[in-house]
Amino acid sequence: MEESRPPRHRVTFLPAGVTVELAAGETLLKAAQNVGLHINASCGGSGVCGKCRVLIKKGTVVGGINEKLSAFDREAGWRQACTAQVCGEVTVEIPAGATKLAGGLSTGVSARNRSRLRQYDLEELRRAGLLHPPVEKLFLELPRPSVVDNRADAKRLIQGLHHQYDERAMVLTLPLLRKLRRVLREDDFRVTVTLARPVHLGQGRNYVVNIQVGNWTRRSFGLVFDIGTTTIYGQLIDLNSGEIIGGEGDYNAQISYGEDVISRIIHAETTAGLDTMREATVATINQLIARLLTTTATAPDEITSVTIAGNTTMTHLFLGLEPHSIRRAPYVPVSTFFPPFRASDLDLALPHHCVALLFPAISSYVGGDIVAGVMGSGIYRSPALTLYIDIGTNAEIVVGNREWLVCAACSAGPAFEGGGITHGMRAADGAIKDFSLNPESLEPMNITIGNRPPLGICGSGLLIIVATLLAHGVIDRRGRFNRRLSSPRLREGKSGWEYVLVWQAEVGGAGDIVINEVDIDNLIRAKAAIYAGIKTLVEEVGLAMGDLEQIILAGAFGSFIDLDAAMAIGLLPEVAPGKVTYVGNGALMGGRLSELSNHIRRDVVEVVNRMTSFELSEVTSFKDQYVASLFLPHTDLELFPVTAKRLGISSER
Amino acid sequence: MEESRPPRHRVTFLPAGVTVELAAGETLLKAAQNVGLHINASCGGSGVCGKCRVLIKKGTVVGGINEKLSAFDREAGWRQACTAQVCGEVTVEIPAGATKLAGGLSTGVSARNRSRLRQYDLEELRRAGLLHPPVEKLFLELPRPSVVDNRADAKRLIQGLHHQYDERAMVLTLPLLRKLRRVLREDDFRVTVTLARPVHLGQGRNYVVNIQVGNWTRRSFGLVFDIGTTTIYGQLIDLNSGEIIGGEGDYNAQISYGEDVISRIIHAETTAGLDTMREATVATINQLIARLLTTTATAPDEITSVTIAGNTTMTHLFLGLEPHSIRRAPYVPVSTFFPPFRASDLDLALPHHCVALLFPAISSYVGGDIVAGVMGSGIYRSPALTLYIDIGTNAEIVVGNREWLVCAACSAGPAFEGGGITHGMRAADGAIKDFSLNPESLEPMNITIGNRPPLGICGSGLLIIVATLLAHGVIDRRGRFNRRLSSPRLREGKSGWEYVLVWQAEVGGAGDIVINEVDIDNLIRAKAAIYAGIKTLVEEVGLAMGDLEQIILAGAFGSFIDLDAAMAIGLLPEVAPGKVTYVGNGALMGGRLSELSNHIRRDVVEVVNRMTSFELSEVTSFKDQYVASLFLPHTDLELFPVTAKRLGISSER
Repeated sequence: MEESRPPRHRVTFLPAGVTVELAAGETLLKAAQNVGLHINASCGGSGVCGKCRVLIKKGTVVGGINEKLSAFDREAGWRQACTAQVCGEVTVEIPAGATKLAGGLSTGVSARNRSRLRQYDLEELRRAGLLHPPVEKLFLELPRPSVVDNRADAKRLIQGLHHQYDERAMVLTLPLLRKLRRVLREDDFRVTVTLARPVHLGQGRNYVVNIQVGNWTRRSFGLVFDIGTTTIYGQLIDLNSGEIIGGEGDYNAQISYGEDVISRIIHAETTAGLDTMREATVATINQLIARLLTTTATAPDEITSVTIAGNTTMTHLFLGLEPHSIRRAPYVPVSTFFPPFRASDLDLALPHHCVALLFPAISSYVGGDIVAGVMGSGIYRSPALTLYIDIGTNAEIVVGNREWLVCAACSAGPAFEGGGITHGMRAADGAIKDFSLNPESLEPMNITIGNRPPLGICGSGLLIIVATLLAHGVIDRRGRFNRRLSSPRLREGKSGWEYVLVWQAEVGGAGDIVINEVDIDNLIRAKAAIYAGIKTLVEEVGLAMGDLEQIILAGAFGSFIDLDAAMAIGLLPEVAPGKVTYVGNGALMGGRLSELSNHIRRDVVEVVNRMTSFELSEVTSFKDQYVASLFLPHTDLELFPVTAKRLGISSER
Repeated sequence: MEESRPPRHRVTFLPAGVTVELAAGETLLKAAQNVGLHINASCGGSGVCGKCRVLIKKGTVVGGINEKLSAFDREAGWRQACTAQVCGEVTVEIPAGATKLAGGLSTGVSARNRSRLRQYDLEELRRAGLLHPPVEKLFLELPRPSVVDNRADAKRLIQGLHHQYDERAMVLTLPLLRKLRRVLREDDFRVTVTLARPVHLGQGRNYVVNIQVGNWTRRSFGLVFDIGTTTIYGQLIDLNSGEIIGGEGDYNAQISYGEDVISRIIHAETTAGLDTMREATVATINQLIARLLTTTATAPDEITSVTIAGNTTMTHLFLGLEPHSIRRAPYVPVSTFFPPFRASDLDLALPHHCVALLFPAISSYVGGDIVAGVMGSGIYRSPALTLYIDIGTNAEIVVGNREWLVCAACSAGPAFEGGGITHGMRAADGAIKDFSLNPESLEPMNITIGNRPPLGICGSGLLIIVATLLAHGVIDRRGRFNRRLSSPRLREGKSGWEYVLVWQAEVGGAGDIVINEVDIDNLIRAKAAIYAGIKTLVEEVGLAMGDLEQIILAGAFGSFIDLDAAMAIGLLPEVAPGKVTYVGNGALMGGRLSELSNHIRRDVVEVVNRMTSFELSEVTSFKDQYVASLFLPHTDLELFPVTAKRLGISSER
């Protein structure tokens, strides 16, 4: 999994005298951002506005030149920080004009504090005895039949497995029996068999699901899918090495029947609606399977197992179970546990011998994707009191450790995905993902995804913008702009007061890009719902927020958010940033482990059975917690002592 | 299963003074035959030859009148014995002319000694604790969901089964999950579930395979099929009462690809031959299923289980397993054990939840039909040393008791089914099934199936004819006709010496019906193969034929053969006739028990594993045994002391 990394070089910024090391190819703007140096940059780093010019004092850079720089300036060493790429050690001076603060002093915005990626260490699992492959390929050399040994082919195979590998309790499947005679005799009774093991070792039977001519033990693969409401991701796993050898993703074709789970459920209640949506998702998965097999040059026959995780509604729709009761109180799913299915029964384009496992759900709104994350991240084996949280339109929250686990879902609304925000957008090219502010001029430094001209604000950018505006007193703790500040960028717009992030004149586009008080209010409501959910859960089990020892973030959003910003606005409870990790796609991670270890498949039943689910709307304290959370970061600053101190805010302010 | 029987009446024959009781509607010829009185009757009892006239002395009969009787004779009380039916107590005089023996004295032919039908006593099994239904229907009334009880539908169902019936370890299937929500709510959470139990109680899982609205526990059915090379029989079983409520049979549509298993295997080796034959058999079974459901007014949904037995080749062809190696030394089948299949995977027209069980086989030539018979007849639980034998083109032989079992198959040839016999035919209307001889005139009494004019000789008739000819010295112990006897019925024909059973002139037809020395030789070879097989098996385990304590006959032939004749020709070893029983179709009998008891399903694996199969062609003594058996009844008369005495034959004769 180790990628070859580009070389890293030192960049020294003058006059601040700050030095930072970063990868070749990264921009000077990025270097400055990393050490919290502000450089005016309206255009998101796309090289359009020309405001971010810096002077190369020593060393060289690649690029950073366009028509806004005269030949004389270029000769003198001026470059645009947003497009100048590091290619060796370099010393750069940030002119007063570029920052309007004397000499580019720190703006007080610390470097972005992202959570560490947490990945499963397969070696560690192996040492801990947790790796019991659910599928194994074994090579056999069997004696030929003779007059004194005319055992049936099936018996010969079973007894061979017993003698060579001490295997017991084996069942041969129909498709295997149908080709058994031919395959055994094609290479003189030298064959590779695929065994699907019982989840409880020593209990249940080993299914001999496939047989191949010759030795194919090296080639054994599994698939993992995360069925999201919007997107479906798939991975192809080498079951021998545990490595992910292919990954694909695509929109869930169901999306044409509604954006969210509720509209999908409503469609499922129409005639043939359920079938249509089931088929749509199956079609998407089958396309991903085809792409995964093609790109990795894997034969369908080499896939033995597929593990699938999704939220409860997606799981129902994929299986063709009626989701009707999920959207109505008391929110009853058809099932939270699913037996192993034959993949072909689910219409997956996989061989008959392939088994499909679906992660169990906890409730109508805490689904198999979260359970997969709980299993994959190992919370259920950890002594530390952990908050596991997957933030999206709905945030699913799990709190607990190896002794107990509680969970809940809360509806955060779409703010974190850019919904309900005037210039909000998904995390795509052109989305403002990072931001800093010149506290005197209130000029921004916008950094966009792909360094493209800004088109809007994505969720992680929104968090940083609001946290930065708060830190500089541009907004107060209720999210209202300080009307006393004077700047062309602060104005009263159609929806009340707003801050102009990008002037249309600077970069083109349909109009100015702004953030207004309604946007900020929507963000506050969203973060309040999540924080209140976490606090309610923690307090329902008799603990306090201060007892949380670590936070695990799941989902794409979790991997992008700046932890300081998240704590500054009160989205996440305050823990030391080093205690926050992210697992990326928790569903895929858990699915991959399930492909590699029967331990996970066995433990998940027990974990789900002891996980208590809270219906927040039924917990009386939740509403109060929510109201108390409608401040930045919270009404009660004692919950955020470090943050409050860092931001220089106090209850009195 | 008790049928209402017709009233029985006494018939007294003069001058012999013999009285017999028989059912109303039976003929006087049958009555005479039952007590061993010979009445000349060439035409098989069809009323054509007019030779069997008798005088009614007291009482009346129905029928027995045709144009061969004058009005005067009729008035005097003369009737034809073959068509005169008993309807009350009657006294009948057999005239000297009708028998040519003074006054119809006994010919020395005893009454036919058929084996008793042996049927499983379900009550006895129940008392013995052997009835563990593999399928059970349970009625449930579940609490409605509420805010404080929003368990998933599946959990509600599983926990309901646990609380109301102490059920554990349950798995819900996909089709059940798909309709669960709807069915639960249709009658306020009152449902009937169908549970398929694990074969080993307490091990494995209970599959909840179906759910119905309301209480349907009374309606629970299973199917049983016997896939014969020629014919397929099916029964529909009420799983609550154990009763057979429907039965159907039809030719196996495979028959157009060859009459015997070897020609079927050869066809299976052609392109698409296997598929074609598999589909043909499946089509026949599906037609039988449709007829069974229609005639018993059963819905497909009410069938949960089907048990199937057949010989090893038929089982392979039905499952689509390649039978190629079955017909070549060392005679290796693909498999002798078969896991439970989903009936729909076998293309049976049964609901998805229906499980198909196939009886395991012992070897390439001792198949699941025999194993079913062994299980159904209970040999494997009996202390008595038992011979179980199913006689057809191939005879399958099992010897043993509850401690050990050995088996073998021997190729008897088609003589018992009328094959290789000049006028042999299947047991159908017009086949001579019984016979006696006037020892002076050598005139026959032929009795045909259906009392139709004779068309040929069926297997059971052949046995009686040869035994009778032997008893009267018409043939010797090598099956050669006594050339010194003088009768128009004894003559030299195209294939050597022969006895004329029926003159063409008497009954019309294509020609005289005869039995010749080649026919008798073929029969001797067939019975020698079987007897030698039995004796080889018995002696291979260190026992003697005299140690056999009982015989169980299976198959249609077994139910028809006269035991005295069978022992007279040396087909069956000599045991007291009371120790011989027949089970009819052993495959159906075992299948029905398997539908009713998991005990059978569990024990069969162990029984098959400890049954030793002998390949007779590999046992050196078999050939000698065979040669020694090419006499009537055997070279060694000490093996048949009672028979020899009864027939008045000795080694010297």
